[in-house]
Amino acid sequence: MPRKTIIKKITPDLVCVGSVALDILHTATVTTRKILGGSAIHFSNAASLFCSVGIVGTVGEDYPHERIRFLHERGVDFSGLEVGAGKTFLWEGRYSDDFSSRETIRTELGVFAEFNPKIPSHFKKPRVLFLAAIAPQLQLSVLNQVDDVRLVALDTFKLWIDTRQDTLLEILESGKVHLVFVNDDEVRWLTGERNLLKGARIIQEMGPKWVVVKKGEHGSFLLSDKGLFMVPPFPVEEVVDPTGAGDAFAGGMLGYLASQSRFYDSTFRRALGWGSVIGSFYVEGFGPDGLKNISKTALSARYREYQKMTQVP
Amino acid sequence: MPRKTIIKKITPDLVCVGSVALDILHTATVTTRKILGGSAIHFSNAASLFCSVGIVGTVGEDYPHERIRFLHERGVDFSGLEVGAGKTFLWEGRYSDDFSSRETIRTELGVFAEFNPKIPSHFKKPRVLFLAAIAPQLQLSVLNQVDDVRLVALDTFKLWIDTRQDTLLEILESGKVHLVFVNDDEVRWLTGERNLLKGARIIQEMGPKWVVVKKGEHGSFLLSDKGLFMVPPFPVEEVVDPTGAGDAFAGGMLGYLASQSRFYDSTFRRALGWGSVIGSFYVEGFGPDGLKNISKTALSARYREYQKMTQVP
Repeated sequence: MPRKTIIKKITPDLVCVGSVALDILHTATVTTRKILGGSAIHFSNAASLFCSVGIVGTVGEDYPHERIRFLHERGVDFSGLEVGAGKTFLWEGRYSDDFSSRETIRTELGVFAEFNPKIPSHFKKPRVLFLAAIAPQLQLSVLNQVDDVRLVALDTFKLWIDTRQDTLLEILESGKVHLVFVNDDEVRWLTGERNLLKGARIIQEMGPKWVVVKKGEHGSFLLSDKGLFMVPPFPVEEVVDPTGAGDAFAGGMLGYLASQSRFYDSTFRRALGWGSVIGSFYVEGFGPDGLKNISKTALSARYREYQKMTQVP
Repeated sequence: MPRKTIIKKITPDLVCVGSVALDILHTATVTTRKILGGSAIHFSNAASLFCSVGIVGTVGEDYPHERIRFLHERGVDFSGLEVGAGKTFLWEGRYSDDFSSRETIRTELGVFAEFNPKIPSHFKKPRVLFLAAIAPQLQLSVLNQVDDVRLVALDTFKLWIDTRQDTLLEILESGKVHLVFVNDDEVRWLTGERNLLKGARIIQEMGPKWVVVKKGEHGSFLLSDKGLFMVPPFPVEEVVDPTGAGDAFAGGMLGYLASQSRFYDSTFRRALGWGSVIGSFYVEGFGPDGLKNISKTALSARYREYQKMTQVP
């Protein structure tokens, strides 16, 4: 009788709970076929360049698993990806000519409508947890399934600020979220404050120790108990597709953090620098393509260039 | 018979040719009386913190000379300020609540309508010359009166891009202007290019070696033959009045440059840093007040804070 092989599953450094989708994108020059989309895909595409990543999400029977092979090859653990009866979340959108705005043409939630994240047992104690911009009640459910996470980061968006603000505030005030990602509009919607720095301070007072404000093409800043750290964007001359750049920014930042043994103030500053650099690669290709075949050398070269072009002597 | 005392007039490090005006400003909370305005005043207010400055401009018989005593005390040379028969240039404007836009209520050009800059003989060879956003034909006339200037910098604005683009391009292409200040809209109007970095490269190809793009609350960048240098803004929590902040930014930048014996790439980077810091003080008071009683200690402290908050480790 053969001995049963017991494979001990390894806890990833970083776990991400978010959407896994297919996107159809229209830009001034191109209409794509269904391409890989969803916050968990964009995030893990970036984060897996730095550390081991596990994702929790749901897809339908139509999901083209062969197209995420490159993520498997980078060691992304898909144990938390459920395949449900139905279709994968589909989003179709059109960008304005200069990418300054976009409109949704179609949203078909498919199996994502019933998403109820179940955290695999070997995902329950990662160093870093990222709650992408899913419904606040689902974010809360995930927080109740994990334990002893060194850094919990949360993202959100307008729909949840408009419709689930109570739950969102409950999470922020629970003390369980250490870092929050917001863009400039979200700061204003969430706090009613027009000055971004003051708004970020209000969010910090709600609970999270670190507040990252993403200003898109205008850079970002990090507010912590050590003060303020501001970075301009890495300049990109040809934007191809901004979809997922925010998730990739978060993935670069948290992936770098999860790869470090200690979290100093300088670790967070470097992480923000990595977020900017990764975000700049991301907009240079459709969907995940901007980071699909990127070399460590190209990443490091751009990081050094970024350091140099932002250093006030 | 008393001996005639001959005072040899000293050439200032930096000469500025621009408007000298009185402004009436309306913000969400305040309406001012007539306060000091005009590009030459805002510029010299900033630049005189770093080096000796001479200004060339024109005012009417109503100009309150006692109110620029603080600039005389800082050594600003007003030999180039003509007093004409008539009234001083008056501008009245209203800012939107969040200062994101402003409308002109009244423009009375007064003696400024006949401004024809005459450069005093001891102003003809400064290290640095700043041509504020006056009519391009006047900028050209000034360029024909000076000689052997180490660094000529030029500012402009929409009116001249719309109505005097030919003269403006003639100046830029003459090779006599080394550095140009433009804001984001001006880059687009002047080049038709929506990507700011590409637009700045087009302007650089016209002639100026250095192009400074001011993005207001989103920071600025400097394009030179050494590459790109980007800085975020120094964050200001309470904007009181943005009037003159662009001129003060230019004054801080060029004042610092004029105070330095050599122009290295790092000198320009520091200068851009000083421009940002000076601009941040400027918006904290009405008209010139933000820099009126500022100490060297306060300036240096903010510069160091700025270095620290922008350093990507």
